[in-house]
Amino acid sequence: MSQQRSPSFLAAHVERLSRTHLRDLLQDQERGQRLRHRVGPLLLDLSRQKLDHEALQALGEHVEASGWQRARDAMFAGEPINTSEDRAVLHTALRGGASHLPPMAPREARLEIERTLQRIEELVRAIERGDAASMGLPSKITDVVNIGIGGSDLGPRLAVRALSPFHVPELRSHFLTNVDGQAAYELMRQLDPRRTLVIVVSKTFTTQETLLNGNVLRDWILRSYDGDARATSKHFLAVSANTAEAERWGVATSNIYPMWDFVGGRFSLWSAVGLSLALAIGMEHFRALLAGAAQVDDHFRSKPWQQNLPVLLSLVEYWNRNALGRSSRAVVPYADLMGDLTSYLQQLEMESLGKQVTPQGEPVAQATSPVVWGSVGTNAQHAYFQSLHQGTDTVPLEFIGVVRPAHPLRANHDALLSNLLAQAAALALGKTFEEALAEAKSGDEQARRVLAAQRTFPGDRPSTVILLDSLTPESLGALIALYEHKVFMLGHLWSINAFDQWGVELGKSIARQILPALEGQTDDLSSFDTATRALLDEIAQRREG
Amino acid sequence: MSQQRSPSFLAAHVERLSRTHLRDLLQDQERGQRLRHRVGPLLLDLSRQKLDHEALQALGEHVEASGWQRARDAMFAGEPINTSEDRAVLHTALRGGASHLPPMAPREARLEIERTLQRIEELVRAIERGDAASMGLPSKITDVVNIGIGGSDLGPRLAVRALSPFHVPELRSHFLTNVDGQAAYELMRQLDPRRTLVIVVSKTFTTQETLLNGNVLRDWILRSYDGDARATSKHFLAVSANTAEAERWGVATSNIYPMWDFVGGRFSLWSAVGLSLALAIGMEHFRALLAGAAQVDDHFRSKPWQQNLPVLLSLVEYWNRNALGRSSRAVVPYADLMGDLTSYLQQLEMESLGKQVTPQGEPVAQATSPVVWGSVGTNAQHAYFQSLHQGTDTVPLEFIGVVRPAHPLRANHDALLSNLLAQAAALALGKTFEEALAEAKSGDEQARRVLAAQRTFPGDRPSTVILLDSLTPESLGALIALYEHKVFMLGHLWSINAFDQWGVELGKSIARQILPALEGQTDDLSSFDTATRALLDEIAQRREG
Repeated sequence: MSQQRSPSFLAAHVERLSRTHLRDLLQDQERGQRLRHRVGPLLLDLSRQKLDHEALQALGEHVEASGWQRARDAMFAGEPINTSEDRAVLHTALRGGASHLPPMAPREARLEIERTLQRIEELVRAIERGDAASMGLPSKITDVVNIGIGGSDLGPRLAVRALSPFHVPELRSHFLTNVDGQAAYELMRQLDPRRTLVIVVSKTFTTQETLLNGNVLRDWILRSYDGDARATSKHFLAVSANTAEAERWGVATSNIYPMWDFVGGRFSLWSAVGLSLALAIGMEHFRALLAGAAQVDDHFRSKPWQQNLPVLLSLVEYWNRNALGRSSRAVVPYADLMGDLTSYLQQLEMESLGKQVTPQGEPVAQATSPVVWGSVGTNAQHAYFQSLHQGTDTVPLEFIGVVRPAHPLRANHDALLSNLLAQAAALALGKTFEEALAEAKSGDEQARRVLAAQRTFPGDRPSTVILLDSLTPESLGALIALYEHKVFMLGHLWSINAFDQWGVELGKSIARQILPALEGQTDDLSSFDTATRALLDEIAQRREG
Repeated sequence: MSQQRSPSFLAAHVERLSRTHLRDLLQDQERGQRLRHRVGPLLLDLSRQKLDHEALQALGEHVEASGWQRARDAMFAGEPINTSEDRAVLHTALRGGASHLPPMAPREARLEIERTLQRIEELVRAIERGDAASMGLPSKITDVVNIGIGGSDLGPRLAVRALSPFHVPELRSHFLTNVDGQAAYELMRQLDPRRTLVIVVSKTFTTQETLLNGNVLRDWILRSYDGDARATSKHFLAVSANTAEAERWGVATSNIYPMWDFVGGRFSLWSAVGLSLALAIGMEHFRALLAGAAQVDDHFRSKPWQQNLPVLLSLVEYWNRNALGRSSRAVVPYADLMGDLTSYLQQLEMESLGKQVTPQGEPVAQATSPVVWGSVGTNAQHAYFQSLHQGTDTVPLEFIGVVRPAHPLRANHDALLSNLLAQAAALALGKTFEEALAEAKSGDEQARRVLAAQRTFPGDRPSTVILLDSLTPESLGALIALYEHKVFMLGHLWSINAFDQWGVELGKSIARQILPALEGQTDDLSSFDTATRALLDEIAQRREG
């Protein structure tokens, strides 16, 4: 059960608001205006959150007393705020070139970042003008495969799909992620090895999934060249902090792009990890993505909490999670192109904030990351929205919509937007038993009451709406930066380090112990627990079947 | 906050087990054997659930006292157990032809089902032998588009993808779901209208999303025939209970396949709703899917609770949800081909079980459907598993694995399975502070203790493992039927009607009110709440931008 130590400074507000329905809060127009804000191409509407002036003010005083500006500036300035790894956290510097405020990041990092952006630009332009050979690559490339997992996959994957209306012609993008061989197997049957460029993305260049898939594709291209390793090598780029290992694996030095210890994987879309994106949309669009993010960086650096969107988002989440005890949040983009946003945010939020000790090693004082889940609407309405409307738990939602679509089908888009607005309204307003009873026309009194009970909606269920004017590199960059800073703020409010991920290590180390047993290299299973042993036995038997 | 009225008959067991770690429970081999069971091609391992003999026995006594066999038989026999709509629930009859037990469903339903299966078979065989024209369809079909949403989409989508190694050659499958015009727009740019067969799936034939997309594709095909409506009509099949409306829309009577009021959308894969699947994999494979499900139906009808897999799954969920208060469950298939399983189960479980009143209209006595979420492993390990290992909440997991893959890349598959086993083990066993401290070599005592705290894993986090011998039509059918009956059992245990979905109605009716405002047909927004009005204004302004 989640640790429900509701912060005492919010208790009176929780108590007061428990007697007020969202239906009533929404009567107050001035309240709505205080809870709707704009930054660049984004509108953030928090008016359907279960907060009034007083509760918001209490949250604001809490964050003001917390020294959040000092913490924020420490990040921008490159102080080692990732304490468990003694590292700076400088993803904001990756788009710092587009900022309108004075740079805070160390000069050395900024130069290194700018050099890398220039290298990416050279590569993108060479491929665009059909001159990949000048960069030591095969002359004719039709398909780019990004091999990476986690932070080396989710960001480029999200953006390449979301920005497909901006794609350059005649270059297709693919993402090879899972160690499940099915994906590599299908990709190889579909592509021409001689025309495929592979980008291997791994900070350490030791990631099991990425290396196994890299090996499979390397062998496939090698076969197409009858074993010519030199010709094969031209098909590979690497993005890695481990240059030596990438070279040893077979990537030419000039084809290796850097990753830095001051950028975490889940914050790395803006770096060379975004290479597949830059190739897909071209360099102007890639720079527009950076500029969109920089606009939100500047906003985060300069606005007071009352108008600071990442701060407000974090306070709302703190309220829902810690004051009201909500254990999950559903993210529902009403846009097929943003279908990967939810999985992107799952990593960004849950890997950053799913912690239970402070940087000092003490247990946290409250629940941390909720479960982040969801999928695109309207599809979601026909799947799990039943439970969000009439289930026993309250799940706060986040609706993301796009005002102007990238296609000419106006009737479809109007229907889409009307559904987004209607769901947010239905969840907040609900339908009372009396309203439902008035609608139930047939049957006797008892039958009418039973049916009305099924058709009652409690309402009072909160949601946030984010509207993008249109889905562009700029607005996508702004949206992602908004979430990044929200995560930063929650790490600050919860006293956890949002930039490490020690929780992924134990599974990896046990997998290394189990693998030899599956490979038949050992029959000695005595070091494993009884359940693992039983399943290893089962697998061995069924493999023969 | 979820309604936490933990059942009193379990309180002593919760208390006792709160003092025992899963690490210790797993020492007991006999316990493990009682919690691992097989049905046909499936192995279900519940040994990593936080239950001992006594707790399981208490749950078993509870379900035995509940009259579950009587309730089950009422479903199989076609009694109107969907009381709010006064309907029978007969998805099991759709695969009853493959059962080895005496049929219980009404004879009329069985005949109707068999006739429809024969019609599907005729169609599939005609297309396979290149004779689609004999069925009144275009002679050369290369692409099949299924237009449907919710239950008319998720089942065929899951199965078509999962069974892609079984696909017939030269026929590609597509799913058009969302009312977002982007998908239709992209599909039309990709396909040849003259070679596309469209299946419009909607029980009422009034589903907004499906009809809008149907209209878009109909216009597209019509244009390719210079307005010849008769030629266009040949490209459309309908699956619907509303024959009149489908005909009026333009589908020939002979091209309309039935839906019945005794089969709910989310249980309809086995009916003509599975037409796109039958076309994709051929009729033998489609019948194998039915046979796999029938095998689990027979199992459910005949086994005592101690060995009855759907019953055991439902008891474990009851335990996690109601006794231990877990608010969500993560479903993580270690198989790219089963990437749509989680969204399929979201609908099946959350739409069936996300209710808060009994069929008599009384408030339920306990929390109902948890949030169901997740995505494929190993990808998930690099995204949100941090939070599952070290977050503040306990989230029960369900791992689904496949012993024998459909591809030859053995090293990849061994790595995949080793990760599945390792995650289940790591979540259960954890790593103590003392173990972590012993591994921390550098730094002074204080630094070592701080690092060890970050590297501690509480463990004691439960999971279920389901292993399929291989991913075939038979094993997929069995797996889905297993979940269907688990859902039935939870509806029974929670005293709710798992077969209606009144909670989807309010949003639809509000969307109908909002649409005219978006279409510019009215400027009078006074009937809307303040938040809806503000967003409608915002959209109107930004549209001009």
